[in-house]
Amino acid sequence: MVKIGIVGGTGYTGVELLRILASHPDADVRAITSRSDAGTRVGDMFASLRGHYDGLAFTAPDATDLKSCDVVFFATPHGVAMGEARTLVGAGVKIIDLAADFRIRDVALFEKWYKLPHACPDLLAEAAYGLPEFHRDAIRRARIVGNPGCYPTAMQLGLIPLLEAGAVDSEHLIADCKSGASGAGRKAEVGLLLAEASDNFKAYGVAGHRHHPETVQELQSRSATPVSLVFTPHLLPMIRGIHATLYARLTRPAVDVQALFEQRYASEPFVDVMPAGSTPDTRSVRASNVARIAVHRPGNGDMVTVIVVEDNLVKGAAGQAVQNMNLMFGLPETTGLTAAPVLP
Amino acid sequence: MVKIGIVGGTGYTGVELLRILASHPDADVRAITSRSDAGTRVGDMFASLRGHYDGLAFTAPDATDLKSCDVVFFATPHGVAMGEARTLVGAGVKIIDLAADFRIRDVALFEKWYKLPHACPDLLAEAAYGLPEFHRDAIRRARIVGNPGCYPTAMQLGLIPLLEAGAVDSEHLIADCKSGASGAGRKAEVGLLLAEASDNFKAYGVAGHRHHPETVQELQSRSATPVSLVFTPHLLPMIRGIHATLYARLTRPAVDVQALFEQRYASEPFVDVMPAGSTPDTRSVRASNVARIAVHRPGNGDMVTVIVVEDNLVKGAAGQAVQNMNLMFGLPETTGLTAAPVLP
Amino acid sequence: MVKIGIVGGTGYTGVELLRILASHPDADVRAITSRSDAGTRVGDMFASLRGHYDGLAFTAPDATDLKSCDVVFFATPHGVAMGEARTLVGAGVKIIDLAADFRIRDVALFEKWYKLPHACPDLLAEAAYGLPEFHRDAIRRARIVGNPGCYPTAMQLGLIPLLEAGAVDSEHLIADCKSGASGAGRKAEVGLLLAEASDNFKAYGVAGHRHHPETVQELQSRSATPVSLVFTPHLLPMIRGIHATLYARLTRPAVDVQALFEQRYASEPFVDVMPAGSTPDTRSVRASNVARIAVHRPGNGDMVTVIVVEDNLVKGAAGQAVQNMNLMFGLPETTGLTAAPVLP
Amino acid sequence: MVKIGIVGGTGYTGVELLRILASHPDADVRAITSRSDAGTRVGDMFASLRGHYDGLAFTAPDATDLKSCDVVFFATPHGVAMGEARTLVGAGVKIIDLAADFRIRDVALFEKWYKLPHACPDLLAEAAYGLPEFHRDAIRRARIVGNPGCYPTAMQLGLIPLLEAGAVDSEHLIADCKSGASGAGRKAEVGLLLAEASDNFKAYGVAGHRHHPETVQELQSRSATPVSLVFTPHLLPMIRGIHATLYARLTRPAVDVQALFEQRYASEPFVDVMPAGSTPDTRSVRASNVARIAVHRPGNGDMVTVIVVEDNLVKGAAGQAVQNMNLMFGLPETTGLTAAPVLP
Repeated sequence: MVKIGIVGGTGYTGVELLRILASHPDADVRAITSRSDAGTRVGDMFASLRGHYDGLAFTAPDATDLKSCDVVFFATPHGVAMGEARTLVGAGVKIIDLAADFRIRDVALFEKWYKLPHACPDLLAEAAYGLPEFHRDAIRRARIVGNPGCYPTAMQLGLIPLLEAGAVDSEHLIADCKSGASGAGRKAEVGLLLAEASDNFKAYGVAGHRHHPETVQELQSRSATPVSLVFTPHLLPMIRGIHATLYARLTRPAVDVQALFEQRYASEPFVDVMPAGSTPDTRSVRASNVARIAVHRPGNGDMVTVIVVEDNLVKGAAGQAVQNMNLMFGLPETTGLTAAPVLP
Repeated sequence: MVKIGIVGGTGYTGVELLRILASHPDADVRAITSRSDAGTRVGDMFASLRGHYDGLAFTAPDATDLKSCDVVFFATPHGVAMGEARTLVGAGVKIIDLAADFRIRDVALFEKWYKLPHACPDLLAEAAYGLPEFHRDAIRRARIVGNPGCYPTAMQLGLIPLLEAGAVDSEHLIADCKSGASGAGRKAEVGLLLAEASDNFKAYGVAGHRHHPETVQELQSRSATPVSLVFTPHLLPMIRGIHATLYARLTRPAVDVQALFEQRYASEPFVDVMPAGSTPDTRSVRASNVARIAVHRPGNGDMVTVIVVEDNLVKGAAGQAVQNMNLMFGLPETTGLTAAPVLP
Repeated sequence: MVKIGIVGGTGYTGVELLRILASHPDADVRAITSRSDAGTRVGDMFASLRGHYDGLAFTAPDATDLKSCDVVFFATPHGVAMGEARTLVGAGVKIIDLAADFRIRDVALFEKWYKLPHACPDLLAEAAYGLPEFHRDAIRRARIVGNPGCYPTAMQLGLIPLLEAGAVDSEHLIADCKSGASGAGRKAEVGLLLAEASDNFKAYGVAGHRHHPETVQELQSRSATPVSLVFTPHLLPMIRGIHATLYARLTRPAVDVQALFEQRYASEPFVDVMPAGSTPDTRSVRASNVARIAVHRPGNGDMVTVIVVEDNLVKGAAGQAVQNMNLMFGLPETTGLTAAPVLP
Repeated sequence: MVKIGIVGGTGYTGVELLRILASHPDADVRAITSRSDAGTRVGDMFASLRGHYDGLAFTAPDATDLKSCDVVFFATPHGVAMGEARTLVGAGVKIIDLAADFRIRDVALFEKWYKLPHACPDLLAEAAYGLPEFHRDAIRRARIVGNPGCYPTAMQLGLIPLLEAGAVDSEHLIADCKSGASGAGRKAEVGLLLAEASDNFKAYGVAGHRHHPETVQELQSRSATPVSLVFTPHLLPMIRGIHATLYARLTRPAVDVQALFEQRYASEPFVDVMPAGSTPDTRSVRASNVARIAVHRPGNGDMVTVIVVEDNLVKGAAGQAVQNMNLMFGLPETTGLTAAPVLP
């Protein structure tokens, strides 16, 4: 059994970690912290978890011994994990950060986007980027994993095979992405109210979104040519799910893009390349760790359209974090992550 | 033209007043106040109103001359209108309060439920209860109108005909009411987020809701026998609309309930008694001031089920307020309120 | 391993059975029939099941050998199961019918409501009513189980403890029930389109609903006094979930209704009596077999309000069917049904 | 008063025409046909219209005298209007077709996409394309107007200013479009059920959509260079609204795209160019004839992103049709179309 601590368990990634780990045969959640809700039992905060964590209550961060855990998940705002990392790693505890502290290699770039000085650039340097499909070996060896953002997961899964093959104009990539409202987190904001955000659709962050630098970093690392990406996030009137519609101009029109994707992901347990002509819906992965991909060449022209769907809270956050944990502890990679999606 | 001021125009009842008044041929909105958004133009706050109020910006309450208005609408939290009432009424300005300050006759009862001392019991005593179907003459003569709550409007329209006729057991009335999320107002609360409240349904306020005493007061005034009411509000995963499902035991089973309702509302422009057997949907009144009513006797037993649907922001708030304004200024009652509902 | 056949697997109860059984350690789905989709692989019909039933395709009913199964689930319209029952039972196959063929004891009553002559009244007589909380022993011994409807499950769980205790006026029971749209099945009807049913709410079937006689039958069997029930179903603008708000007049006002429910369900794995004052939301049981119950006495009067939430496709259909299967085959009752609800 | 006939009034464009015309001061709806619902009164089909068309019932097409109308709207499937056009035009009746019969100039192209021989190529040749912002004079003079599709309206409003200015690479235009479910019409299809399409998002028609040729025809007519367009429609889990996110590579990076759009639409009553940096939401035009546009240059690079929002049933269908009618009959263009959008 892996002894687990969770820091910041009252947001959506926190409750999703609890949901997934409740069915994980090798997980033993020992501690879960929350500054604002210390003392509240997990089942009193989230009725859905009544009966699953009967002994467990949220505890104050300062009063919680996380050093006896094997791994600590940080489901916190940016900046928290890096503050705790040195102590925990020093005590032999592995860290999976679901925020951005260990995703961006370039410290200056991190500090520009997150308006925070980085607390431990040395640990950042050794951290693995937690997208197993591209960093599996590094994750297995890592003490610290920076779990990717929800949008970056989808964009990388959909664009990297094209970049690796040198098949597209890497300087005019377009990512038109749409996310369910849970991607914005469990925070009280007028714009996220049901009465504002339902029966409605809009773009946001067009001038710049924090998931952009992280994505470009990873795309560039797989591309022989310079990468430039236009990324437009949109808010969907629904709870879960990301749909990335990705566009690129083929520089090698002879390439068989369907075969390219099928081969690239042939052995991946959580990436499902759909048959040619498919248009996967987000619900087809609801509450599951699977990402589904479809590839199109409209009118057989020189543009390729790649569709990626994922559950932003699972493959885009908590599920991927558990996938990483499985790798870090030598467990079968799919442990605890095999339940079928919930449809309808 | 009626010169109009609106106090507190950034909530849902405020923006709905602006929407309705934009098409009202006799309305001239001169001032709209907002403490937090003073200086912002109306169209910059609500893009839907771009082009409709080009000269109008929110102003600070203290810096706004409302005494030159003919009428002031208070789309504010409870307690604001009663603080301004004496000054305005003294200056000859009429008041329509969309909050609760002028709804409950019994000052002690008001203070118990709203935890505020009443600022002007004398003005409360003269105020009219703004449900035209039952207080039309008083509204015509009133200087101050207490506009009913959204739930109370539906419950009264559905139960008063039965009580007036002495047809039901008035001590065991049941109102199972469901409201769209806009009824909770435009305020940042976690429980009202799309990710919390959509694809979900729940009751709330079962132990006691502020619309209960106001409703019982009005029902009792129309009943020869004591009134007791169980009122269960529920939160619907949608934006607008109230559906009240009302239950009562018939003490005079011979009464023709369909005819009773048809006769009671025969001349009412905004109450539509549906044909027997109907189950009106809330969208049939979306964005309109109409309430639709259907009456059933399941299995021809001794229970009567009354269904009332209304748009909580229109007949349940801003539309009814404009209906009251029309009455107070001698305009045709339906002025500005005749647009067809938006369906789908 | 239990060898399983499913008849009619392309509706919502069918796909939900497949979802649940995919994680059931003792389930081996051998055959699934569909007249209209014979030849289609399960994963091609429901992308959510890609990778879970790779060898399985829908087959024509006539061409399918169900007699080698241990149990056959009927996820079909009413009337299908009773036509196949004699043959299958004769071959030693157990039957769980998710439609109404084996729910109503009174053949004439069945025929009145379902407009079909019953094909096998003798088998109906031996069938168990598949609500384990009240018929567990009979289900264990049964060859045929009539799985309850979604509404009846909620109504019975909420009303039977009161009736067993003789605590309420059984002749004026009220069930105001609200169901997500999946309860209407996966069939193309204009009224169920997103553009019709979302951002909308309505009652339906007020004049009479097929779940009424089944519910009254079961309530009456637990009541010493005559039962009469007003049942109003409503359509919620959401996918899954039933919320029953139940009202009864207490004839024994001294009874401690909270304790009554807690004691009644103390040992039930799938019934969660919430703390006093709770208002459970439907999402707290989404995709899970749990029903949650809250009990209220508004204003400490003589009325009791009981709230029951369940997932209509799980505890209201497929999950309960698997719970019944577990009982019929001597498996632990909760096998395959322990995953935490999906929230948000 | 303009005497109006509507053919096919039971779909969403039909009921939306009725909603808009109910408030139009110069409209007199004399006849409305429906093959399947002949004899049904309008208010019995659409409760939202009770009280608005009291004398009006649907009539059988064959039994309806449309020749005495001044104008006939066809809110029918493709192919109906062209069958009636010659007779009506011969009788001096003007025609506004909301389907595709009079949109595509190239008869062969029409026949390829719609699988129908064109019934009256000569009338097609004289028909005006009903997008007033680009064809106002032709519409004023026209006997027949082919009202644009919902997607084409948004794409043209967002791309034509760039093409007219010769500012972009016209051969790699991308239109990532998202539509509410009402865009698919009021027809019973499983994929459009609330239980299928809500809390879900998907692309469709990636291999080819009928709105593509119409859009390319119009874009090409405004471009000096060859036009090639990748168009990806997606289905939004909401009722009304289209959001087009349009991408193009600037070939003249010095152009001020914000000024370009502001100048192009400066005198247009129904096109609102938002301030730089805006991300308009679809609800900001709900139930209104306005389209809002925002222009972005992400990272000040060589890509331009244009956002267009419209209500697919109003500016994308019935509202635009009424705008065309106003032009055809010499009425002020905005007559009956000035009500503020419904928000929230």
